[in-house]
Amino acid sequence: MSVDPYMRGRMSDAKSYAAPFNLGEVMHGGAVGEVVASNTNGFAPGDTVLHQLGWREYATLGAKDARKVDAAGVSPSIYLGVLGMTGLTAYVGLLDIAGLKDGDIVFVSGAAGAVGSVAGQIAKLKGHTVIGSAGSPEKVEHLTAELGFDAAFDYHDGPVHKLLRAAAPDGIDVYFDNVGGDHLEAALRSLRLFGRTAVCGSISTYNATELPPGPRNFGNLVVAKRLTIRGFLVMDHFHRFRAFATEVGGWVASGELKFRETVAEGGIEAAPQAFIDMLNGANTGKMVVRLT
Amino acid sequence: MSVDPYMRGRMSDAKSYAAPFNLGEVMHGGAVGEVVASNTNGFAPGDTVLHQLGWREYATLGAKDARKVDAAGVSPSIYLGVLGMTGLTAYVGLLDIAGLKDGDIVFVSGAAGAVGSVAGQIAKLKGHTVIGSAGSPEKVEHLTAELGFDAAFDYHDGPVHKLLRAAAPDGIDVYFDNVGGDHLEAALRSLRLFGRTAVCGSISTYNATELPPGPRNFGNLVVAKRLTIRGFLVMDHFHRFRAFATEVGGWVASGELKFRETVAEGGIEAAPQAFIDMLNGANTGKMVVRLT
Repeated sequence: MSVDPYMRGRMSDAKSYAAPFNLGEVMHGGAVGEVVASNTNGFAPGDTVLHQLGWREYATLGAKDARKVDAAGVSPSIYLGVLGMTGLTAYVGLLDIAGLKDGDIVFVSGAAGAVGSVAGQIAKLKGHTVIGSAGSPEKVEHLTAELGFDAAFDYHDGPVHKLLRAAAPDGIDVYFDNVGGDHLEAALRSLRLFGRTAVCGSISTYNATELPPGPRNFGNLVVAKRLTIRGFLVMDHFHRFRAFATEVGGWVASGELKFRETVAEGGIEAAPQAFIDMLNGANTGKMVVRLT
Repeated sequence: MSVDPYMRGRMSDAKSYAAPFNLGEVMHGGAVGEVVASNTNGFAPGDTVLHQLGWREYATLGAKDARKVDAAGVSPSIYLGVLGMTGLTAYVGLLDIAGLKDGDIVFVSGAAGAVGSVAGQIAKLKGHTVIGSAGSPEKVEHLTAELGFDAAFDYHDGPVHKLLRAAAPDGIDVYFDNVGGDHLEAALRSLRLFGRTAVCGSISTYNATELPPGPRNFGNLVVAKRLTIRGFLVMDHFHRFRAFATEVGGWVASGELKFRETVAEGGIEAAPQAFIDMLNGANTGKMVVRLT
């Protein structure tokens, strides 16, 4: 099963796009599993299916809520990550929301995470200069040595705007934001004329107990540089799944696009801590929990 | 001659789209005047021309830097305001940057100002519900009684987000931002799904001595509501002048689109105080200085 940053928002009764989790009820989330019994044509015991009833060991669901996936030769969890909603989020955010175009210099925050690592690699595979930020020296090394990022920094090493300026001395054209806070402010300072920001998440603010401060000097930067900042949710972009699966699936199959998973062992009991660890950045790549 | 908020940015050596004014040199800005001498075909004494060498009583300029305008029956200052860059700014910001579409509820800040009063009226003429904010009871009355705004408020009367919520209980779809600061934060809170903000200016922050704070909870609002925020400068959109002049010129000629000017008398000596007064909101509609 998948643990994802967006679930943090459902643990609050603030009005949002997804209804809050109800106290005392089982939580929901993406999961892949093996069919053990079926009353429906098209699903047979042994099939691998993707569904949204994670946070439990067994789920009963209708055929329309399950999608059969091909688990031959791959870990089925790939459909929770690089070939699932996580990968589609990266693809749509970079290409459709930020409108990636030739010559763009791209900055991705949370770049060793599930979405960021795919977004950065897509930009690299399309020929761009890509800078990433992450939360440990090991992750920075992973980005530059394994994933091909042109530059990367550990955001603990100084003010983000200085680290970004050093890593991208000519500025940036696209910012893929998974983090918010200081990262967003730094990116707005480094963005060049007609720069674009795709806001995918703001994980640095999810545990804030007061309204998190916004990027300083926002209006002046946005006007002077004619910036566009756009928030998005993958659920509005499912029509892009086929194009995504073709293009990114090809890169995964050829090995050009690499991915890691951080797998929490220990079954359902391990899920809450895995979720907390993921919010704290303990994962590299997609964080999943092995239920059985 | 025209005094405009953007000139404030040129009184700083911060890097921006327009070079700073140089100490000891004459400032520049939009102006209309009468030709008193010409060595060029196409310009004769008595012609009225628009040019960018304001902040002086007489200007010497080449033919390519002057545009002849038709001053018959109108105050020539109309070409500095509703039928000039000011009006084009409103037109482009609302239609192209915010992407106004059927059914949108529109909020305009600085709505009694030169740009805001045109933006709000264009939205009204296109059939939208329009809410405006301004800085005095007289301006609020002007918006609702004379310009046809559906609702308006004086931002001194309480927290802007509460005033906006009361004036637009169903929320807003488009925000035309002339003010920044609290207004932008309030608008982000009131914007509905897929709402759009055109950032034209941030006059509330121009005299800030520290980096002005940004809208709180920015990333979370932008993602959850899939908002788009876009800054723009009219100089990138001169190709829209003909469409603008046709549409808005028609409304001005028919009297459907109303405009006021605040005219500072006293000649060039009055210009600095007129500029300061404009930044403080003393004007209704376009602020101009009569030089002769």
